[in-house]
Amino acid sequence: MTDHLSPALKTALAYHDAWTGKDFERAMTYIADDIVCDAPAGRIEGSAAYRAFMGPFVQMLISAEMIAAFGDDETALVMYGTETVLVKHAPGAECVTVKDGRITYSRFLFDRTPFEAARQAGHLASGQPGRQPAT
Amino acid sequence: MTDHLSPALKTALAYHDAWTGKDFERAMTYIADDIVCDAPAGRIEGSAAYRAFMGPFVQMLISAEMIAAFGDDETALVMYGTETVLVKHAPGAECVTVKDGRITYSRFLFDRTPFEAARQAGHLASGQPGRQPAT
Repeated sequence: MTDHLSPALKTALAYHDAWTGKDFERAMTYIADDIVCDAPAGRIEGSAAYRAFMGPFVQMLISAEMIAAFGDDETALVMYGTETVLVKHAPGAECVTVKDGRITYSRFLFDRTPFEAARQAGHLASGQPGRQPAT
Repeated sequence: MTDHLSPALKTALAYHDAWTGKDFERAMTYIADDIVCDAPAGRIEGSAAYRAFMGPFVQMLISAEMIAAFGDDETALVMYGTETVLVKHAPGAECVTVKDGRITYSRFLFDRTPFEAARQAGHLASGQPGRQPAT
């Protein structure tokens, strides 16, 4: 599926490869300064806010596998699985708009429920609320 | 994006149009009897179980809009927004495998958190646990 390397998909895959390879600084080079990201918890605006959203997730990432990736000139849609320190099976999906090789808009989807459950369990076990990184 | 009507995408869109148009029986004609669906709460096996998973969601659906849809011969990937009785903004993504015009496998992704919050609020308000349909 990933051989249809349209311009948007090329950028989306380069971004994906960078963050799943834990090279978060390289990943951020594909993020527009004025990115808007609609994530499960609400809208994130600007690359600094996006960094604060995505960085802690990358830190707790153990592994990732691409499930499907498609795109055309301006839009790419990917779904992937991840394993993280908090949650063993945590799939995600992103629909991104790409302009000039950077992601300017992202619709970001994942299930928050297991992360919240893991954090609550962690808090109960450790007695240290806030110890786990936020996604 | 939806003009790339590969075989898998054609089926995925016909299924999507049917359930978002509240013609759930027509939607089910695109679901293989032995469908396997990996949903946020776990694996669903067989069309009867899939009906029990998806039917209540369709019943509480108010509106839906396709965000992006792509596919090739065997795989389609869609992301859409929905508005439901319980949750105003509830995007979903599905990566489906299609064989002979029917969906045989689905990786189904949505954020359970707002649905659980709405149900808890509903239960507190109504005092009738279980009144809200399950997704």
